[in-house]
Amino acid sequence: MLVLFTDFGLQGPYRGLLQHALLTYAPAVPVIDLMHDVPAFDVQAGAYLLACYAAEFPPATVFVAVVDPGVGGARAGVIVEADRRLYVGPDNGLFDRVAARGGDVRAWRIIWRTSRLSDTFHGRDVFGPVAAMLAAGTATPDELGDPVDPDLRPWPDELSRIVYVDRYGNALTGIRAAALAADTRIRTGHHLLGRARTYEDVPIGEGFWYANSSGLVEVAVNQGRADLHFGLDVGMPVEIEGATRGIIRPR
Amino acid sequence: MLVLFTDFGLQGPYRGLLQHALLTYAPAVPVIDLMHDVPAFDVQAGAYLLACYAAEFPPATVFVAVVDPGVGGARAGVIVEADRRLYVGPDNGLFDRVAARGGDVRAWRIIWRTSRLSDTFHGRDVFGPVAAMLAAGTATPDELGDPVDPDLRPWPDELSRIVYVDRYGNALTGIRAAALAADTRIRTGHHLLGRARTYEDVPIGEGFWYANSSGLVEVAVNQGRADLHFGLDVGMPVEIEGATRGIIRPR
Amino acid sequence: MLVLFTDFGLQGPYRGLLQHALLTYAPAVPVIDLMHDVPAFDVQAGAYLLACYAAEFPPATVFVAVVDPGVGGARAGVIVEADRRLYVGPDNGLFDRVAARGGDVRAWRIIWRTSRLSDTFHGRDVFGPVAAMLAAGTATPDELGDPVDPDLRPWPDELSRIVYVDRYGNALTGIRAAALAADTRIRTGHHLLGRARTYEDVPIGEGFWYANSSGLVEVAVNQGRADLHFGLDVGMPVEIEGATRGIIRPR
Repeated sequence: MLVLFTDFGLQGPYRGLLQHALLTYAPAVPVIDLMHDVPAFDVQAGAYLLACYAAEFPPATVFVAVVDPGVGGARAGVIVEADRRLYVGPDNGLFDRVAARGGDVRAWRIIWRTSRLSDTFHGRDVFGPVAAMLAAGTATPDELGDPVDPDLRPWPDELSRIVYVDRYGNALTGIRAAALAADTRIRTGHHLLGRARTYEDVPIGEGFWYANSSGLVEVAVNQGRADLHFGLDVGMPVEIEGATRGIIRPR
Repeated sequence: MLVLFTDFGLQGPYRGLLQHALLTYAPAVPVIDLMHDVPAFDVQAGAYLLACYAAEFPPATVFVAVVDPGVGGARAGVIVEADRRLYVGPDNGLFDRVAARGGDVRAWRIIWRTSRLSDTFHGRDVFGPVAAMLAAGTATPDELGDPVDPDLRPWPDELSRIVYVDRYGNALTGIRAAALAADTRIRTGHHLLGRARTYEDVPIGEGFWYANSSGLVEVAVNQGRADLHFGLDVGMPVEIEGATRGIIRPR
Repeated sequence: MLVLFTDFGLQGPYRGLLQHALLTYAPAVPVIDLMHDVPAFDVQAGAYLLACYAAEFPPATVFVAVVDPGVGGARAGVIVEADRRLYVGPDNGLFDRVAARGGDVRAWRIIWRTSRLSDTFHGRDVFGPVAAMLAAGTATPDELGDPVDPDLRPWPDELSRIVYVDRYGNALTGIRAAALAADTRIRTGHHLLGRARTYEDVPIGEGFWYANSSGLVEVAVNQGRADLHFGLDVGMPVEIEGATRGIIRPR
């Protein structure tokens, strides 16, 4: 299975051209579009979101992950293996959290090159083909890259800022709910929010936070838009209050 | 065939996680993304749109339909059969119109449970797997649910409000064009609109209504945006004038 | 392979209903969504974009291309063959550039008719089925249409205006970069932009133009939005300065 995780958007030709590359190198492998609207250029947000959602996929899944403001520059391409899943994309920190949290972590710097390499679309020209060959079983990481040490960043275990706002206006943070006590309150801007289990547990129009369906702390309003209600956007800090494991402050 | 009809948006990870659930339980069944931008939380708009578009698909099609503001609360999950098509989703009125208009209607309250049930994403955890098992033929409605009486709402045959605005700015209503005489005029706000067959039949920039390609009354402007031109949005009433079968007023 | 290129948007039911038509007539042929957000009604922009991206696909690819403001009116449907690729859609100029630039060009006026022909959705009712039959090999162009002469417009070789703005705010023009000298500067509005190879070659927040990954002249800002930075939108003229092959001015 190939899983796509990018900041391309579904707009424009980029996702389709990537799909064509995958189809060329792995015609029989199913492709899942996990997320194409990772906040543009926000590698760190991508890293925390990817680590969260990747855990839902089985071993041997191959991820094509592209949030790549440095495309065509000095950064290398990388294959990372963690918990028996494979990740292919730019070596810019995007795989930091899957590597930091994962077991059996290995990494390879990609040396495979196509005859046609653009300066600005390595998703189509490098990462897509490499991922497809891995998923189809027509090449191994050792054939496509040189072993390197996984490159970890000095990033916090939990990222106390907003990393994504979804269609409903819900604001996802980079904090895992399992890290927090049940009575924890979340502060964002001037607002202090208590926890609820699901939308219906609070009145219509009221805000709360909850452990979302993939385990992240998420700020929501029952049948409303938390982003508009509380003035939230990607990058804004959230602060944890009353956490038994200590207060997490934004960095 | 599996057909998806949700208010998830294509943004974010939700559609991809649902696709993963379908692939897990029905790896060989084709999936069609019919619509993922049903107006958020607007179950009634969803019900009229679904009944309109479902008629285009053949018997044995299984729909995963999720507009579910009450997820995690008291509402049950339901399988509805109507005109030999199957619908899987929340028991909140979303299938009211396919049941009210359909023949051979049956319903089951879903009792199947996964070991991993979230409070806020039953599309991934319940409706997707159940629909996939039905589409793959690996389970029957009787194995996944308990028979119940279909739950019908006191909703009108034709819904005289705007239920969707598309990419071109065209405004779809919940009224079937076949219910209206050819010389019927539509009033929305201060505007009274005549009927045309297609865009080119009126001058560029002029508004009209027409029977759209799926049979609904739709307000449009030739090569313009009806939503901006007439100030239209989802939920706004439309009024039928000169209808030989009587005036339909908004409720 | 079937490749979709439309201005439907991914919003609403249109792409899904087209997919259903393709699945009906060509159940085993892979479908790639190349682009669904061609600027609405902008046939000329579509023509230059399509000619650019089509070159990335192999012979025998069948394109369903729909930018069709005249749907239901006098314009015919057409099959165009160029460079051994097939194009199916409205005969309104959308295939002008693939025909003008291509070799071995042939065209057929579509005569195939379904029993159910709407006035406003020929993508679903005509172009989708015809393209699917061609892709599946169940019908030939001669069986589906009558040979006609390809219909070429008096359009320039390079279109010196903005034809698309992508998710990052990059502005694509209809000019092929290969037509320009390396030291060419681009003027748009009051701004004069030099060329760079990729984003990282200029400081963060600075604008430039580059040969994009499909060969078009594209205006961008490193880690910023060129559309907001320079006030760019589809349709705005760009002017080429210092081109060794002469100045291209907007028409």
